[in-house]
Formats: sequence, C-alpha cells, structure tokens
Amino acid sequence: MKIVASPAYLSTASADFFQNFQARLHWSADTDVAIEARVAEILQDVQSRGDAAVLEYTARFDGLTAATVQELELSQAELRAAFDAIPSAQRSALEAAAHRVRLYHEAQKRACGESWSYRDADGTLLGQKVTPIDRVGIYVPGGKAAYPSSVLMNAIPAHVAGVGEIIMVVPTPRGERNLLVLAAAYVAGVTRAYTMGGAQAIAALAYGTATIPAVHKITGPGNAYVAAAKRRVFGTVGIDMIAGPSEILVLADGTTPPDWVAMDMFSQAEHDELAQSILLCPDPAYITEVQAAIDRLLPEMPRAEIIAKSLSGRGALILTRSMEEACDLSNSIAPEHLEVSSQDPHRWEHLLKHAGAIFLGAYTSESLGDYCAGPNHVLPTSGTARFSSPLGVYDFQKRSSLIEVTAAGAQVLGPIAAELAYGEGLQAHARAAQMRLV
Amino acid sequence: MKIVASPAYLSTASADFFQNFQARLHWSADTDVAIEARVAEILQDVQSRGDAAVLEYTARFDGLTAATVQELELSQAELRAAFDAIPSAQRSALEAAAHRVRLYHEAQKRACGESWSYRDADGTLLGQKVTPIDRVGIYVPGGKAAYPSSVLMNAIPAHVAGVGEIIMVVPTPRGERNLLVLAAAYVAGVTRAYTMGGAQAIAALAYGTATIPAVHKITGPGNAYVAAAKRRVFGTVGIDMIAGPSEILVLADGTTPPDWVAMDMFSQAEHDELAQSILLCPDPAYITEVQAAIDRLLPEMPRAEIIAKSLSGRGALILTRSMEEACDLSNSIAPEHLEVSSQDPHRWEHLLKHAGAIFLGAYTSESLGDYCAGPNHVLPTSGTARFSSPLGVYDFQKRSSLIEVTAAGAQVLGPIAAELAYGEGLQAHARAAQMRLV
Repeated sequence: MKIVASPAYLSTASADFFQNFQARLHWSADTDVAIEARVAEILQDVQSRGDAAVLEYTARFDGLTAATVQELELSQAELRAAFDAIPSAQRSALEAAAHRVRLYHEAQKRACGESWSYRDADGTLLGQKVTPIDRVGIYVPGGKAAYPSSVLMNAIPAHVAGVGEIIMVVPTPRGERNLLVLAAAYVAGVTRAYTMGGAQAIAALAYGTATIPAVHKITGPGNAYVAAAKRRVFGTVGIDMIAGPSEILVLADGTTPPDWVAMDMFSQAEHDELAQSILLCPDPAYITEVQAAIDRLLPEMPRAEIIAKSLSGRGALILTRSMEEACDLSNSIAPEHLEVSSQDPHRWEHLLKHAGAIFLGAYTSESLGDYCAGPNHVLPTSGTARFSSPLGVYDFQKRSSLIEVTAAGAQVLGPIAAELAYGEGLQAHARAAQMRLV
Repeated sequence: MKIVASPAYLSTASADFFQNFQARLHWSADTDVAIEARVAEILQDVQSRGDAAVLEYTARFDGLTAATVQELELSQAELRAAFDAIPSAQRSALEAAAHRVRLYHEAQKRACGESWSYRDADGTLLGQKVTPIDRVGIYVPGGKAAYPSSVLMNAIPAHVAGVGEIIMVVPTPRGERNLLVLAAAYVAGVTRAYTMGGAQAIAALAYGTATIPAVHKITGPGNAYVAAAKRRVFGTVGIDMIAGPSEILVLADGTTPPDWVAMDMFSQAEHDELAQSILLCPDPAYITEVQAAIDRLLPEMPRAEIIAKSLSGRGALILTRSMEEACDLSNSIAPEHLEVSSQDPHRWEHLLKHAGAIFLGAYTSESLGDYCAGPNHVLPTSGTARFSSPLGVYDFQKRSSLIEVTAAGAQVLGPIAAELAYGEGLQAHARAAQMRLV
C-alpha cells in the first residue's frame, strides 16, 4: 500500500480561506470529564495513603510490582551505569548537547535572572531578590515518547537556577528502562529519580509521601492523566504549561532547498498524528516543489505512516499574497516552532510577534534547536505563545520584592498611603502609615 | 461587649511547638466540588451563548439588568468623570501612587524584561525576544473588597509591559459603582471596562463574546467562583496565581515601637477573618508589650471585630530562641508579607529565602508597600512564595527564543543532533540535521 501525505493546499486569495484555515487549526484542550474524575480520585488516594497508594497504582498501571517505594528509586550508581553502558557516540552527543544547553541558560540567567535594586531620591531601597526554588519535580514520559533530550531541557535550567533538589519521575512500564533517559538524568545532574508515572507520580511529588519529599514545582510533559493531575495540583505547587500537540510553521521565501523544508515538516509530523506542520509561502511554484519533495522523501521515512496521517489530517501548504501577509498569518497562529526559511530572515523577524521559538535562516533546522543549539525545546503550543514563554531558568526561580523606607521616605509615602487606605475603608493600614510620621 | 484579640502564644522551646504551629498555619485551597460544577456550567454557557448568557448571569447574581452588553461598558468619559468627582486629596494620592508604581515597574522592565542575544564561537545567534501580550483582562472585585489600589497594581505593570488593550471587569451589585475604583482605572490607563463579575466575567474574557474581545491572560483576585473559573480557563488563557487569605509575618528584634508592630498586624487582620498575622521574636518582654499594644489599640479600630476574629483564630506571637531561628521559621512559612522590624534588617535579609515581599526596617510598614512605595502588592500567598513571585511586568510579557545557525554552525551541531535524534527514534529530525551538512 502506498502511503501518501497530502497536506491541505490553501490560498489566502480564496473566498473560503479563513473558514478552511480555522478548521485546520482547530484543536481543543478540553479535558475529558471521566479522566478528570479518575485523576481526582488518584490524587486524593495518594494524598491520604501515600506510598501504599503509589505502589498499588504503579503495579496496576505500569505492571511494575515493588514492596516499597525505595525499590522504585534509581540510585546515582544506576544512572551512572546507564551512562557508561550507552555507545560512546551517544555519550559524547549527550555531553555536547548538555554543555550547549547549559551555556545558553547561564546567559539567560545573567540576562534576566539576577537580583536588582536601586535607591530613589528619598533614599528608599526598592528592588527584587531572585532566588531558586528549593525542590522541583520533573516528569519524564516513558514508553514510546521517552525523550532523553527532554530530561536535559527540564533539568539543566533548574540546575542553572540553583535548585537544590531535582527529582525526576519516569514510568517504566513492565520495568523496561530507557538507558538513554537514565544517562541524560546523570548528565543533567538529577538529584533523585523514581520509576513511576501517571497521576500517582504527580500526586507523590505535589503532596509528598513518607519516601518522596514534596516538591514546590513540577515541570515536564505527559499524557492526558498527567496533564489533568498537573492542572489539579496547581496552587499547591507551581506547574509549567500544559502541552498540546507539537507544531511547526515554516515561513518560506522560496530560497531554501525544498527537500530541507519537506524534511523539517516531517520532523514535526513524525512526533504524533496530531502534530501540525504548516508552510506559508508567496511562491506557488515553490509550494509545488515542496509537495514533490514530500512525495519523494516520504517512502524513505521509517515513521512514514505517522507522518502521512499528521500531514494529511492537520498539515497545510498555504499560498500567501506576500511575505508580509505570511508574517501576519503566523502571528494569528502563534506557532510553537517558527522557521523563517529565507535568505534575509531578519527582514521578517521583527514582524513576528508570537512564537515559542524562531529559527532564522535555511541552516537553522528546528531539529538543531530540539537537541543542541542551546535554547530550551519546551515551548508553548496551541497558540499559547500569545501569553507564555519557553521553559527557562526563570521557571525555576522566584522573586521577593525588597522595600526599605527610610524615616524621611516614610514622611513622603505615609500621607499618600493613608489617604488611599481611608478611601478603601482600611483604617489600620492608614494608622500604620501615620504612626511613622514625625 | 468587649472585643478581645488573643493571638496564640507559642514558644519554639515547647515540646508541642511544631504541632501547634502547623495547626495555626493550616489553610486549605481545596475547591468546593459544588462550586466547581456550577462554574463549569457557567463557563460552558457563556462559551456557547455569549452575550446573552453574560446578561442573564449579571441580572441574576448582581441584580443588574441590561438589554445589551454595551450597556455594561463604562466609557472612558465615565472613568474620567469618576476621577473628576472624587476629592482632590484622593486624586493627588492616586496619581502619586500610580507614578511611583510606574517608576518601579519601569525599572523592573529594564532589569529583567528586555530582549537579549549573543553570538557564540560558531557565529550562531542565540537569545530571546521579549514582547508584550496583546490583550489582557483584569478582574477587580466589587462590593466590600473593592480596592482601587488593586486596579493600579494590575493595570500599571501591563501598561509598562506595552500591552495593547487592558480590559477591566468589575461587578457592580445592584448598579452600585465605586468611584475610586473607576478613577483608578482612569489613572492606570485601562482601555475598556465592563460592570460584570463572577465566573461569567472570567468566561467572557477567556472565550470572548460578540461584544467582548477574548483576552490572552487574566489577572486579579476574586471570590471562590472567580478562582475556580480562572483555574478552569488556564491553558486557554494565562492566569496569575490563585490568591488565598492575606498574611503578614513580622520578624522583630524588639527595637521597633510595639504600637507600630501591633498596628501592622492589625492592618493584615482587618482584611478578612481568615487573614493571618504572625510575630516572631526572641524577646519575651517585647512580645508582652506587643500584646499590650494590641489590647490598647484594638478598641480604637473601626474594624475591631474582624481584627479580633482574625488574630484570635489565626494569629500567633511566637517566642524564638534567636533571630536566626526566627528566619528559619519564616522560611518554612514563606509568607506573603515579611517585615524585618529590626535596627539591622540587612543582617537578616540574606537569611530569608521565601517571601512575596520583604519590608526592611521599622519605618517600612507593609501599608506603604500596599499603596505607593512602588513594588506590586499582588503577592504569592499561602506558602506559594516558595515557587512564585509578585505580579510584575514579566507577567504581561512573553518570550520567543531566537536561533540563527550559520552554515558553519550547522556542521558542528548537525552530527550531535542527528546522534540524539536517532537515539530517540526520530529519523526525520536526524535527516533534517544531516541534510544541512556539506
């Protein structure tokens, strides 16, 4: 059977463009009510019964039986052994990637993660003290979507932020461990690791058990149960964004080899049938060449079936009137990954308002960013780049405002505060300010 | 009837200290299942029926009848008229507070909210572009907890971030408007304002209606319905933290006039019976003086009854063995407001790891920070300062990673990415990197 990938061909000049375009984009993050109820139960059970509940769910859902939660812990020696066991080419690649990711996040910390303060004319000290979170949990999916690169991308920013303890959980269905994931945990400096997953692992991290210390924030992707559990524990702990299917948008001026663009679209589509790959281009001949490249390259791909389903179901090749219009459309999508495949990418970059990561120029394939360019590959999906950001050092830090008012400053600020406090009917607030007046 | 405020007196030297201390601290953010279900219904109804549903709920819950949502809009002229109608002392105080809050948040933007980038040895450009969110919603409670200062604290950082449209919603039960809130909206530069509240207002902002444009993030405090609604729309839009009862912790070395400390504790307690005021001090004589000041000052307070209930139910005067131990205890609480009421506050400041805002020295009453020192008064409560931060300019910005790999850089990065991609079974990722090798 011949596998065919047929992304929708749309033109912004068509009368029905927006309707077709919206239909392609549609993806709902609505949670399943049955999953929500099940997850609420699991959370409550782990909260009240702790280790015993974790062990039961791990046996039931992962087919992994253990007498104690200690048995589920992966020792540092086991992580190290995994690192030693993988081929040396993988070891070197992991270390090189970790090194670059670390350098980038260190630069990020210098750029936006340091404490700051100033004194105003009254001598009042104002600023913010930036400190690391004490303890964080990192969820790493098991099974088919077990990505060692995600371990690096979650643990390294936490490490750079100065987090004291980084606790990783990773399900190992029927005890099957992914050596590369364990090796990545070793390279990234994970403090403790447990072979558990699902809502029960999120509950154990959020509430703590006799064995597992409660963390203050949980990051990392997971299935619908994990996502529902993270949403529910939000407030008890911090969480990162809830991730939807992965997406790439390629904005092409027609100068990049069409094979490269086709392969970049594949590299998104191969993740998942729901992944979305979109090409925006003002040159119809180039779009035809990309479709031809898709047809030619697809049979070579081991994951051809997933790629074909993703491209045919959710992909699109969109002919635009201009690159400017393509930029506008891209902003309306707010894609997770945005490739500006152009000889002059900076001409377009400043028009791009919303995107998780912007890959500039033909040589910057998304896959380089996924693994080793340095920036984080945990990015906002499903249009959430309109209001959220890549995972970063800032996600593992928090800020405390600093205020030191001098006796002189209190004379200036006191009457203002008192006036507003009386206006709000908060007399003790007013009196507290007035008591400091001399 | 004599009103008495009796905070618990605890000593860290007692055998049962931690048990009593934990019992005092306990506060649960658990949401009521009935409220959750009701809110889910309202959200769905507004999502499907839009304006009509908003009008019905506003009539039912706020006793405010309108034929169209346009009628619920407060025009810029109405906001301006409110500003003109309030006493000139209030006008000046609002403007002075807004000015200082703006200066602080501008400094914050310079310190941690600017784009940054660098080129590495291979010529690879790496960095982050920081841009404002396009449109945000600000929820302002109506009724007894209508605080104009909250309008400033939410809208000004959004404005400084460069947010294009700031849409405020404020319930006006039975049409009663709070002029000071409207005046604050005028001073803070709110773009549009609607007299609506509850879960229906959150739904209108998150999903949009025919009249109200959908926003990308919603901030601001509200009751249990508002909190539940924000939690549910999280993901469709961004939200700030879910706020619990307000708290103050005073760390005193015994050098501040006891009346000042008593009044600072009152100024937290007067918010709400569930508010929490705690004093930590190594000097038993000073604690006695503070309790005497509480007894003496309480009868003068218009909100004495609330203050007494809050202090007796949730307040505590804690004798510690030392200031160092007091700092440790404070870290275990992670208070929203932390006053270091000491002659040498910087000696202790560096020991303090978790707090929403730290007020240094006897003259820095929390109330100055609440209104006009400059830093934001929207702060993490209920121990969430362990992982979250004051509201700030950064909450109204988002980041896009920038990556530009040169042809030379692609030769270095390609083999690393390909090795890891093959390791993850993602062959298209590997091929995309390898195609760029010359």
